[in-house]
Amino acid sequence: MQTLNVALGARSYPIYIGAGLLARPELIVEKLPQKKAAIVTNATVAPLYLASLQAALESRGVSVVSITMPDGEAYKTWETLNRIFDTLLELRCERGTTLIALGGGVVGDLAGFAAAVYQRGVPYIQVPTTLLAQVDSAVGGKTAINHPLGKNMIGAFYQPLAVVSDTDTLGTLPPRELAAGLAEVIKYGLIRDAPFFEWLEVNMSRLARREPEALAYAIERSCANKAEVVARDELETGPRALLNFGHTFGHAIEAGTGFGAWLHGEAVATGMLLAAELSHRLGLLAAADVRRLGALLKEAGLPLDPPRLGLERYLELMGHDKKVAGGRIHFVLLKRIGEASVSSEVPRAALADVLDAGPVHARA
Amino acid sequence: MQTLNVALGARSYPIYIGAGLLARPELIVEKLPQKKAAIVTNATVAPLYLASLQAALESRGVSVVSITMPDGEAYKTWETLNRIFDTLLELRCERGTTLIALGGGVVGDLAGFAAAVYQRGVPYIQVPTTLLAQVDSAVGGKTAINHPLGKNMIGAFYQPLAVVSDTDTLGTLPPRELAAGLAEVIKYGLIRDAPFFEWLEVNMSRLARREPEALAYAIERSCANKAEVVARDELETGPRALLNFGHTFGHAIEAGTGFGAWLHGEAVATGMLLAAELSHRLGLLAAADVRRLGALLKEAGLPLDPPRLGLERYLELMGHDKKVAGGRIHFVLLKRIGEASVSSEVPRAALADVLDAGPVHARA
Repeated sequence: MQTLNVALGARSYPIYIGAGLLARPELIVEKLPQKKAAIVTNATVAPLYLASLQAALESRGVSVVSITMPDGEAYKTWETLNRIFDTLLELRCERGTTLIALGGGVVGDLAGFAAAVYQRGVPYIQVPTTLLAQVDSAVGGKTAINHPLGKNMIGAFYQPLAVVSDTDTLGTLPPRELAAGLAEVIKYGLIRDAPFFEWLEVNMSRLARREPEALAYAIERSCANKAEVVARDELETGPRALLNFGHTFGHAIEAGTGFGAWLHGEAVATGMLLAAELSHRLGLLAAADVRRLGALLKEAGLPLDPPRLGLERYLELMGHDKKVAGGRIHFVLLKRIGEASVSSEVPRAALADVLDAGPVHARA
Repeated sequence: MQTLNVALGARSYPIYIGAGLLARPELIVEKLPQKKAAIVTNATVAPLYLASLQAALESRGVSVVSITMPDGEAYKTWETLNRIFDTLLELRCERGTTLIALGGGVVGDLAGFAAAVYQRGVPYIQVPTTLLAQVDSAVGGKTAINHPLGKNMIGAFYQPLAVVSDTDTLGTLPPRELAAGLAEVIKYGLIRDAPFFEWLEVNMSRLARREPEALAYAIERSCANKAEVVARDELETGPRALLNFGHTFGHAIEAGTGFGAWLHGEAVATGMLLAAELSHRLGLLAAADVRRLGALLKEAGLPLDPPRLGLERYLELMGHDKKVAGGRIHFVLLKRIGEASVSSEVPRAALADVLDAGPVHARA
């Protein structure tokens, strides 16, 4: 087991990464203020891991209730959140009850937000079971639900007590979801860790085959990158925005096709390629590097071509993105592989070209 | 104008108290990160103060939109909150847009919570127009909405950039609402400021007549007491709980009679008297002091007699209170006037006696 620390002063917490961690309830129990927990999970994950986690916690004297939501981004809504509140209140769960998010990014975002606002805040622990959640959404304290007018529009920055990432859970992950997680892994290399990007170019086939050592290394390296960024900028007032590389396009793709049609990681992959193409057209990134990114995404099994929503619809959708300030759309661009920066100086014509032609340099 | 500071490190903020402050937009403008604001108010307050505040801000170059909700505790719900989100998103309000809560406690709690979670947090400023909000709810960063199973069950600790309390707004306050505010004023004397309680005994008739100097003094002293408590315990893990004196009974009264039938301050007044009576029965508070409290509440125009909900219903309602830990109901009790403490050792029989007989020593 590897342990990383997210350094946030009084709100610091450990990330545990390794095989077999669901069978080590002490990692969770030692963090609980009271021996009372509510596990939030979904209908896909529950049959796989709920009973064993619940039994493991109960064997340590923890009183556990569980709340199972339907699976999917379409359920990351106020209605589902309210079902969690109803259950917590009916069971008279108090401020000392810890929520445990067992599942992927949707479960983690939703349960984390429930924890942030239930009785003005109760503790929570992330137990991510997808690659995407293990390398991204479970780390850093961003919680949210969707709004009909935009993804993650309602939420909070609220840090967990711990993140427990059992790499064994990736064995049951559908191939599309594994690939979606790899998109965020690739992102860390792109924006701040060129050696890691090069490692990924060499080792992507091992990751696609789910070699445990390769996966564990990729998760660790991803979390270490994210933890460094979050520690410097918990509330996303500065450098944390770089983590949104590919996400402005990606959110538009998700919203424009209806949440759930594209997986978040798939949309981010295509969004990153569009952002790389845009960076190239603005004279920043070499065409060869756009190609390298396209090749790596393809090897990871990720989509390269954006849906044809039309320029106006893209702009409309991107205008609702949180990364808007002063009415201008801010883009995270790449200067080179391993270095990103934020720009609000993107001419509409360049944006139109990219959205119209797609990532042509990745296909070249 | 008096200025108090709520000392919370990076989240510190000023409370401005005085006459004519709504005509001083610079107090607000100097705090805005961008010259863009959304005023949240209600249908009662809007005709009185919205146009002038909006014009004053616009005269300083601030772009202002407004959202007017129906008046009343019954609207402190997710549905109203969602209307705020809808409007903010339709208007493409961004992370730099500041919410301004113009109104009483309901508006402040709701707008504050909207600010806490809209796009994971935007700035907000409290402009309280009721005595209750000026002495209590606008100060300290507690925000929330109600849930069918309990008041303020969903919320956040989220601090404003400033509190602007214009005492002129109290001139339009209905008598019942003035009295409701006085309940919280009296509370500060009871729990931690015996000289202030004695001042109130001498000056209550001046407050009931709305003498401006007396009101300004009472607001300042109340805010100074609250600011001290909040600075020591922002997240209510310790001494801040003493501010809930009378609130465990009070919340049960509000919930049991249907939110809105009793004003919050009225329920707190009766709740304080029940808590004082309970303190007496447990051998803490002298009967004479219960009488003094009863007399002061009566002079303020506040109700002394609790609704007859029955013991079981009270216990049921109090079990949903946030001040529950480890399954026991925690009561804030008075040792003497000016000193309170938390106890979880309240025998059911004593509680039953108090709820059954009511505050008999206040009537003696």
